[in-house]
Amino acid sequence: MRISQLSTESGVPIPTIKYYLREGLLPQGDQTSATRAEYDQSHLHRLRLIRALLEVGRLPVATIRKVIDAVEDERLDVHHMLGTAHHALSTPVEPHPEDEDWQEARELVDRLIADLGWGVHPLAPTRDELTQAVVTLKRLGMPTSQEDLLPYATAALDLVRDLDITKIPFDGPRDVAVETLVICEVLYGKAFDVLRRLAQESESARILGATPCPPEG
Amino acid sequence: MRISQLSTESGVPIPTIKYYLREGLLPQGDQTSATRAEYDQSHLHRLRLIRALLEVGRLPVATIRKVIDAVEDERLDVHHMLGTAHHALSTPVEPHPEDEDWQEARELVDRLIADLGWGVHPLAPTRDELTQAVVTLKRLGMPTSQEDLLPYATAALDLVRDLDITKIPFDGPRDVAVETLVICEVLYGKAFDVLRRLAQESESARILGATPCPPEG
Repeated sequence: MRISQLSTESGVPIPTIKYYLREGLLPQGDQTSATRAEYDQSHLHRLRLIRALLEVGRLPVATIRKVIDAVEDERLDVHHMLGTAHHALSTPVEPHPEDEDWQEARELVDRLIADLGWGVHPLAPTRDELTQAVVTLKRLGMPTSQEDLLPYATAALDLVRDLDITKIPFDGPRDVAVETLVICEVLYGKAFDVLRRLAQESESARILGATPCPPEG
Repeated sequence: MRISQLSTESGVPIPTIKYYLREGLLPQGDQTSATRAEYDQSHLHRLRLIRALLEVGRLPVATIRKVIDAVEDERLDVHHMLGTAHHALSTPVEPHPEDEDWQEARELVDRLIADLGWGVHPLAPTRDELTQAVVTLKRLGMPTSQEDLLPYATAALDLVRDLDITKIPFDGPRDVAVETLVICEVLYGKAFDVLRRLAQESESARILGATPCPPEG
């Protein structure tokens, strides 16, 4: 298809497509004459992936480039390609290995992951993210022992095993697998978070025997 | 206790305490002389609540004032007081009732909540938040029928019933109940989100038979 049709089918305006081509995020089409290039299904997949990274993941262009480099590097197996997207989506957290609370929380996180038998890289930034949440909870006097965290971990694994992971097409085009991972992680994650808050409102009403609560209390 | 001790015990600097007093977020102490006021446990609870709303909930001062007004308004029952904090924490979403996709998603959300028998106010902003997530998922071609969303809702309710809601002291001081709700909603919510991403990484490795993935994979 020509660039105009690629634009219609993807919903991405032509100037934006040209920008992605210049930035190397979208591979060049097949040049059929000096002024014409042909695009195919793989370009449509790539545009969907860029849109998911940009609009759903809200990632900066430099990070999107890293993810796309991993998609294009066929020597990288699917798991490591997905890992790149995965790590790109985590909020960077400054570790404080000199701080005693941090050390203790990090040991707890590492032990939890080991005891669960989860295969997560020792340097994965997600470990720091969890450590930070544990440190903050502990400073506020909330329960954060392994026993306290374990039911959250089990619930998370059930959700991933039964729902999230079943949606990812591991054996299709690489772009599509990464796009689906980003959507699952961000949007079903958001949907779940809202459902949790709806359930909290409902349970609080049930326990207190109250009628549902209007906005602005 | 005097203001200096209140500062030591709460970890909040004296100038910040004076700012909260001026803004009416913290009730005045008991004036014992022209230059001395006495503070008590209730002031400590209030300072913890302000810190939770500010640092954990990342709410602006105007929103914090609304939550604190609800805490101080003893005519408001506990459920409605908690509801104010609850709604303050939701991300404002612009509804699009004129849009067909929006209408359809909103009907789905309302039906889901009704079928679950959840007690959530018809005007709760959380309904709009979920509607927006559903609209986005649907436009990206992801499954969003009631059947697709139901398992997420059930998992959310289990989590709330078994874990979140058990932590809230409904019959203690009003400040403490609201503080705990904010911490549970934001920080255990964050911890769960990270655990979900850790589980995704681990499950992807298991399914693909890969070794765990280093950062910058």
